[in-house]
Amino acid sequence: MVALDLKEYLKEKKKLVDKFLDNYLPKADVHPKVLHEAIRYSLFAGGKRIRPILCIASCEAVGGDIDAALPAASAIELIHTYSLIHDDLPAMDNDDYRRGRLTNHKMYGEAIAILAGDALLTMAFDMFSDKELNSRLDSDSLLSIIKIIASASGSTGMVGGQAADIQASGEEVNLPEVEYIHIHKTGALIRASVCTGAIAGDASDDELSALTRYGECIGLAFQIADDILDIEGSRDEIGKDVGSDIAKEKVTFPSLIGVSESKKRAKELVEKAISSISVFDEKVEPLREIARYIVERKN
Amino acid sequence: MVALDLKEYLKEKKKLVDKFLDNYLPKADVHPKVLHEAIRYSLFAGGKRIRPILCIASCEAVGGDIDAALPAASAIELIHTYSLIHDDLPAMDNDDYRRGRLTNHKMYGEAIAILAGDALLTMAFDMFSDKELNSRLDSDSLLSIIKIIASASGSTGMVGGQAADIQASGEEVNLPEVEYIHIHKTGALIRASVCTGAIAGDASDDELSALTRYGECIGLAFQIADDILDIEGSRDEIGKDVGSDIAKEKVTFPSLIGVSESKKRAKELVEKAISSISVFDEKVEPLREIARYIVERKN
Repeated sequence: MVALDLKEYLKEKKKLVDKFLDNYLPKADVHPKVLHEAIRYSLFAGGKRIRPILCIASCEAVGGDIDAALPAASAIELIHTYSLIHDDLPAMDNDDYRRGRLTNHKMYGEAIAILAGDALLTMAFDMFSDKELNSRLDSDSLLSIIKIIASASGSTGMVGGQAADIQASGEEVNLPEVEYIHIHKTGALIRASVCTGAIAGDASDDELSALTRYGECIGLAFQIADDILDIEGSRDEIGKDVGSDIAKEKVTFPSLIGVSESKKRAKELVEKAISSISVFDEKVEPLREIARYIVERKN
Repeated sequence: MVALDLKEYLKEKKKLVDKFLDNYLPKADVHPKVLHEAIRYSLFAGGKRIRPILCIASCEAVGGDIDAALPAASAIELIHTYSLIHDDLPAMDNDDYRRGRLTNHKMYGEAIAILAGDALLTMAFDMFSDKELNSRLDSDSLLSIIKIIASASGSTGMVGGQAADIQASGEEVNLPEVEYIHIHKTGALIRASVCTGAIAGDASDDELSALTRYGECIGLAFQIADDILDIEGSRDEIGKDVGSDIAKEKVTFPSLIGVSESKKRAKELVEKAISSISVFDEKVEPLREIARYIVERKN
C-alpha cells in the first residue's frame, strides 16, 4: 500500500468541492447582483474546505462513493462560510480581515453581509433537499442529513456556542464552559460533517457511532489548535492578526491551562479520534491523516 | 352551511400554532439562556401567524388534516420571525419598535439579535426534517417542503428581495423593481406557506398549481396592503410609527402609483387569488376569507 500524500489528497478534494460550488451557486450577475457577489466573495476566499473534505473522507471510509457525498459536503461549506461572515460583523467579533482579505462587511457593508450569511445558510438546506442534485441518496438519508446538520448548527449547536462565546468574552470562565463553547461553536459542525459523510456512504450503525466519536474528538481538537495558532502562528500563515483572541479577551484553552497543556490535550484528542476508528480498513487512512493534520497545521 | 367566522378561525389556529411552538422550542432557561430568551421574546411577541394559518388552511382546503400541517406550519413562523429580527437591525431598517415592543436588538443587543435570527432559521429546518414530529408526512413530502421553503427564503427569494429593498432605498426605482422586491421579500414565503399546506394535505398536481397561483396573488397583495397601512394606519394599530417607509425612503406601491391605484391593484390580486381556487369545494372557504382579510386588515 502506497502511503497517502495528504497534501495532494486535500488539494484534490478541495478542487472538487470548489468546482461543485461554483457550478451550483447563482452567478455574480444574478439579481440582486451585490448579494450574489458578496456570497461568492466569501465562499471563494481560499477556505481549506476541511468540513467538506471530512465528509467525503468519511463517506469513502465506509466504502461509499465520492459522488454520493459531494453535494451535501459542499452544502456544509455554505454553512461554515455564513458563520464566518456573521462572526466577523462589528456587533460580533468585529474583524476587518479574514484569510488575508477584507471581511465581507468591510467590502459590501453590514446589511449585505448579514443577508449574504442568511442566504448561504438557507442555500445549504436548498442543496440538501435537492433530490436531483443528490440523486445517489434516498429521501430518508437526505432527511437524516438535514436533521443532523440543522441540530448541529442551531441554538443548541454552533449558534449556541457562538452566543456563549460572546457572553463569555471578558468574563471569568471555567474549563467546562470553554469546552462547551468549543464543542458547540466549532466541534458540532465538524462532527456533523463526518456523520453526513457516513450517512451518504450508507454506514452501518456501528460505523456511524465510531465516526461520530471520531468527529467529536477532532472537532474539539481543531478549536484547541486554533487557539494555539492564535498565539504561536504568524500573520502570513493565519491571515489575520496574531493574538487577536487575547486582544478580544476571548476565553481559550491556552488562557486557562497554558499552551503546553493545551497542546497535550489536542494530541490526546487526536489519538482518541484515531483509536475510535481503529477497526476500519485502509480506506480510513485519509481520516487518520486529517486528524493528525488538524493539530499540526500552520493555518 | 354556516358562514365562516374568520376572526374566530384565525384566533383558534393562532392558538394551535402558539402552543405547538411553545412546546417545541427550547425553554428560556436552556443554555445559553440569553439566546433562548431572545428567541422566545420575538417569537411570542403577538404575531398574527398568517403564514402558518395559510399553511393549515391550504392543507384543509385539499382535504388534509390540521395535524399533518401543524409542525411545518409552525416552522414557517420561525423563518418569518428570523427575517423580522434581522430586518430590524441597525444596519438594515434600524427599527426600535415592532408590534409595539422594543425590537430584539434593543432588548438583547445586536450580537444576540443576529444569532437569535440565525438560530430561528436553522431551527425551522430542524423542525421540517424531524420525522417523529412530522409523523403524518412521508419523507418525500418533507423533502419537497424543505426545498420549497428554502428556495422561497434564499438569495433568489426572501433574502434576495430584502437585499434589493436595501439597495433601492433612496434610489429612483421603477414599478417592475418594486414588484420584484415585494414578490420576493414578502410574497415568496407566503406562496411557499400555501404550497407547504397543499403538500401536507397530499394535494393533486392541479390543486397544487391552483394554490400556488392563489399564494402568489395574496403574497403580493399582502405587501401592497402593508405599504398602504404604513400611510393610512394608526400607530396603535400597526405597532410602529406611521410613515416609516417614507422616512426611510423605501420604495412602495403608493409612492409610485398612488394610494388609490395601489388599493385597486391589491383588490384585483385578491379577486384573482379567489378565482384561482374557484373549483375547490366549501373547504376552501377559509382561504377565500383570508384573501379578503389580507387587504382589509388594520394591522
